[in-house]
Amino acid sequence: MHFLSDNTATICPEILEAIATSNQGAQHAYGDDPWTLRLDSAFSEFFGAPVKAFVVTTGTAANALGLATVTPPYGAIYAHEEAHIVMDECGAPEFFSGGARVVLVPGEHGKLTAGAVTHALDAIVPSVHTLQPSALSLTQSTELGTTYRPDEIAALADVAHRRGLHVHLDGARLANAIVHLGCHPADTTWRAGIDVLSFGATKNGALAAEAVVFFDPQRVGDFELRRKRAGHLISKSRYASAQLLAYLQSGVWRRNAERANILAQRIARAAGARLLHPVESNELFVRLGTYGKQRLREAGFEFYDWGHDNRGEARLVVSWDQSESSVIAICEALQRLETG
Amino acid sequence: MHFLSDNTATICPEILEAIATSNQGAQHAYGDDPWTLRLDSAFSEFFGAPVKAFVVTTGTAANALGLATVTPPYGAIYAHEEAHIVMDECGAPEFFSGGARVVLVPGEHGKLTAGAVTHALDAIVPSVHTLQPSALSLTQSTELGTTYRPDEIAALADVAHRRGLHVHLDGARLANAIVHLGCHPADTTWRAGIDVLSFGATKNGALAAEAVVFFDPQRVGDFELRRKRAGHLISKSRYASAQLLAYLQSGVWRRNAERANILAQRIARAAGARLLHPVESNELFVRLGTYGKQRLREAGFEFYDWGHDNRGEARLVVSWDQSESSVIAICEALQRLETG
Amino acid sequence: MHFLSDNTATICPEILEAIATSNQGAQHAYGDDPWTLRLDSAFSEFFGAPVKAFVVTTGTAANALGLATVTPPYGAIYAHEEAHIVMDECGAPEFFSGGARVVLVPGEHGKLTAGAVTHALDAIVPSVHTLQPSALSLTQSTELGTTYRPDEIAALADVAHRRGLHVHLDGARLANAIVHLGCHPADTTWRAGIDVLSFGATKNGALAAEAVVFFDPQRVGDFELRRKRAGHLISKSRYASAQLLAYLQSGVWRRNAERANILAQRIARAAGARLLHPVESNELFVRLGTYGKQRLREAGFEFYDWGHDNRGEARLVVSWDQSESSVIAICEALQRLETG
Amino acid sequence: MHFLSDNTATICPEILEAIATSNQGAQHAYGDDPWTLRLDSAFSEFFGAPVKAFVVTTGTAANALGLATVTPPYGAIYAHEEAHIVMDECGAPEFFSGGARVVLVPGEHGKLTAGAVTHALDAIVPSVHTLQPSALSLTQSTELGTTYRPDEIAALADVAHRRGLHVHLDGARLANAIVHLGCHPADTTWRAGIDVLSFGATKNGALAAEAVVFFDPQRVGDFELRRKRAGHLISKSRYASAQLLAYLQSGVWRRNAERANILAQRIARAAGARLLHPVESNELFVRLGTYGKQRLREAGFEFYDWGHDNRGEARLVVSWDQSESSVIAICEALQRLETG
Repeated sequence: MHFLSDNTATICPEILEAIATSNQGAQHAYGDDPWTLRLDSAFSEFFGAPVKAFVVTTGTAANALGLATVTPPYGAIYAHEEAHIVMDECGAPEFFSGGARVVLVPGEHGKLTAGAVTHALDAIVPSVHTLQPSALSLTQSTELGTTYRPDEIAALADVAHRRGLHVHLDGARLANAIVHLGCHPADTTWRAGIDVLSFGATKNGALAAEAVVFFDPQRVGDFELRRKRAGHLISKSRYASAQLLAYLQSGVWRRNAERANILAQRIARAAGARLLHPVESNELFVRLGTYGKQRLREAGFEFYDWGHDNRGEARLVVSWDQSESSVIAICEALQRLETG
Repeated sequence: MHFLSDNTATICPEILEAIATSNQGAQHAYGDDPWTLRLDSAFSEFFGAPVKAFVVTTGTAANALGLATVTPPYGAIYAHEEAHIVMDECGAPEFFSGGARVVLVPGEHGKLTAGAVTHALDAIVPSVHTLQPSALSLTQSTELGTTYRPDEIAALADVAHRRGLHVHLDGARLANAIVHLGCHPADTTWRAGIDVLSFGATKNGALAAEAVVFFDPQRVGDFELRRKRAGHLISKSRYASAQLLAYLQSGVWRRNAERANILAQRIARAAGARLLHPVESNELFVRLGTYGKQRLREAGFEFYDWGHDNRGEARLVVSWDQSESSVIAICEALQRLETG
Repeated sequence: MHFLSDNTATICPEILEAIATSNQGAQHAYGDDPWTLRLDSAFSEFFGAPVKAFVVTTGTAANALGLATVTPPYGAIYAHEEAHIVMDECGAPEFFSGGARVVLVPGEHGKLTAGAVTHALDAIVPSVHTLQPSALSLTQSTELGTTYRPDEIAALADVAHRRGLHVHLDGARLANAIVHLGCHPADTTWRAGIDVLSFGATKNGALAAEAVVFFDPQRVGDFELRRKRAGHLISKSRYASAQLLAYLQSGVWRRNAERANILAQRIARAAGARLLHPVESNELFVRLGTYGKQRLREAGFEFYDWGHDNRGEARLVVSWDQSESSVIAICEALQRLETG
Repeated sequence: MHFLSDNTATICPEILEAIATSNQGAQHAYGDDPWTLRLDSAFSEFFGAPVKAFVVTTGTAANALGLATVTPPYGAIYAHEEAHIVMDECGAPEFFSGGARVVLVPGEHGKLTAGAVTHALDAIVPSVHTLQPSALSLTQSTELGTTYRPDEIAALADVAHRRGLHVHLDGARLANAIVHLGCHPADTTWRAGIDVLSFGATKNGALAAEAVVFFDPQRVGDFELRRKRAGHLISKSRYASAQLLAYLQSGVWRRNAERANILAQRIARAAGARLLHPVESNELFVRLGTYGKQRLREAGFEFYDWGHDNRGEARLVVSWDQSESSVIAICEALQRLETG
């Protein structure tokens, strides 16, 4: 039973259906098809504001391309020390920007605070000898399963904007955050000061479809050239765009995220005092101990170790298509550990 | 009626079916799924030799990543002056390699000759002041619809290898070439001296699936790190790999290419003396004149201008799913041009 | 007797003296010293217009840094196919720009023409698939010892500016060109449309001192950050700037260039029909044949082969400090070749 | 009175004399001159082992080029969080390596410990998703004026080598360290496990001359191509190499460093309890308070603020040519602060 990651999940039926439906007749390539041409309006409707949206196939590409449009080669990107762009992208932001630096900022439960970012920015006096602070990158929901409130993002964006930095949001799990917050998509993005967004659909039910969304169309800049140059302009783009349209317009973004979040809460209740962070999306981090991990693995559960191994921590991720039975099973297994 | 490009085509049924079939249950991400784990053996069987194969979603990514593994930042890549890597990838080889140079070599009908490559290599004496000749990149079938014979590739690879260059093949339309030559896939690749191959399936019926194939497993080097860093390691890789497995194993690679090539021959016969290059795959280049282009466009045909505009040249590409009727129609239209 | 290059020459006394004179007491580093602070005004006086000037130690750095400020990573730089940035800098423009491409344009006697540049620009229709034409790089005097007239540069700059390209001038031998033309420094630079200049002093008598000169101060952009990041901001910058000030203000730029040009003319007369290009600076290109080269080398002359070796061509460069005797000797040796 | 930096200092007489002496007659360029050709043997003698040494003109170039030869674009360089490559080079390591990451490691008094480096390396499990640990960069003497003992370097190098990292030493002030330790140059470099060294001479009396020294000639790799490509291969290299030869062979490296270190000790005694770090080279860090800083500045002393400004810390650097009188004056001024 997989609790490894939400990218182990399947494609949800509505999205697979959308791919099949778009598989009709010849269509212009490289984005000049009816599906891709509708992306801007579909995302504008979703966010309640005029935006420009571009499809790519991976979250790493979305993050690195989005950041490269707002960060020069001699720029510095401020991010949480456990952010995906720090830990899991093999230096993609450095590659796409031409050698910018990611500056690591600590923070409880995977979240940055305005104070911590201010402190990090204060630590250098920009001069010709230093990298130039250029972007703040946040993650929503965070890598540790927590979720920023809109006012928290607004405070962070305010610090960044006052110093001339752009604000990027890694929204690989944005749907889970919106559902958790019960807010409008605008509240956790442009209304809170986000400039450029990596919008994820893959983990929440797509085959491979992410979008880079610019809330200020002026900021698009050379994005399209950078995307092409990086091999991320898809020739048969209708199939990627059709996924995003179905995701946004059929409501599966919400339904899938709601289901995963609810199941995560059930596990959270079973995990009780073992939880390391508040559960505010579809990820849980639990202290199992070496023995607890072994017991769960022997019972057929797959999950990743987390943190320094000897601390006995584990990450459990609930997918949109997680089976009821696997959730019931892991809840029982966690409870048995207590009584065990 | 589209004759713009084979990337305007649909997904062929076998491949769409394979995606649906692989959409079962949770699977490890990032290539650790049963479909991706079978790629090496499927490609080894296809090529009749042990190879290492890696899936990506675009031809530009395949070319640039493959070249970057054999070209240092201070390297020079020799290529035909009309190659896709020269004309159509917005500098992807330069980006992925860290600033290598693509050296343009001329050649009739889109083909390089051993003599022309020798001449280009002789033009510089490598020293600390020059870029270092590192790779020769060929295209099969070429950008002008012609196809290298195995002995032509062997002669080119021989020149390259004697000078210490690696040989890359852009095989975006490799299936069309193999079908045209009636040879074994090995004959136009590793047996002729190709070291690394961009293997295309997208144009010939896939959704988005290309492979980088290393014929010498030692040459893989840091490919996987470069792919990840470029955002081209797909999380739900089963869906891309399933496309490639279906493409290779169901025989659609051959069936689709044969159909497109045969239809192209029918148009070639209709075009007659207007042909600019031998038709040896699914692309045709025809001299239509300004008037001829206008007539065809008025009749509902879509195609690209080619060459300097005032020369009245056009490119026609036949897709794997091109309708019979559109082929009949364009043949008639071409013949009507003659009779005026 | 050296005719290899003008970079085999010594430092001229005025410049060595200026280094010694500036060697007094502690001075602020990194350009905040009195010598460096006078560069802008000294260059502005020299060019008769307000400019911004920055010192670096090599011509390759000047060229690559200057070009990088006007060329994005996805840009294309148009240059003569025998330009120094093409042949002799191991890909520095590619490195500093983050992967731009240098597009080679042919031209007689090392010179580009407005027609040839127009033709090269017409060859592509810029789109998201292509590199974006960004800069035209000229060389004055050229790599083949010829010199553009101001109106020739103006015509070239006009073509470039109409298409939105910036114009860079590699002035490693600018002094020789100005002296040859008998014009004001403005005539062959900003008045003719040059935007950014690599101004050379090293070959003409300095230890190691070149300047990047921006004729429009707005174009400086991020030059200073790029220079620092490339390790080209000199800590004890007074010594480099003192060289440039002495070079400009003592008139050695003119005296040294005049001497070298005059001596080159004497050799040109001796070479007669063997000359391959007009001699319009301090470089000569002569057809000697294999036998002639051998005779000269046996007589103690050092020089570089040029072109494809079997054509028997050679380059002779006259330095600012070339000995009279060596010039007399080579003139005689050339004449002896005629009489056999 | 300057205590800003040792790069405000003059050229020492022996080195200026060496430049003048080498200014005789034509010499081959780009390193093929008698001075540059003697560098390997001079450095081999200095270090008591066969080495390869290459001259460049700035410390940033030496560091970034040296690191780039041992760090791939997807590599990670571990360094002290206050190292020059971290704080003062505007991302040069990132630029030269093609986008590697510098991982910051904390440490008391500017020094890393084997434990801290082990901890940092343990924090990631290298995989295709992470940057690959490639190099450890140390600084001797450190940015905070302290000096590693040979056994401390050996312990750090041992940790690095066991994990497959190369070890780089930023030796901008290596002479000061050797003099402080009273050891042989070998003891703090190759005998302790250093693989590649940035050897500084500029701060200690040269005009502009640094060397990259490889203790294993096999590690030179593509250094020369990278140097050329970065514009750091000097055409008239004799003048840079002559500086290094004079520096090594006349003993000024030792004499100048000894003088600066001794003067720094005098100031250290005057600073007493205000010292923030042990004084083990020519740099002092003192807690002056806002009032103390103001008093010293009013008395005519120039120095940099250090740390977060409100902590009232300052850096004082003693140059090789620091005047006796300025040292006496600052000692008295410091003492006055106490009695003040």
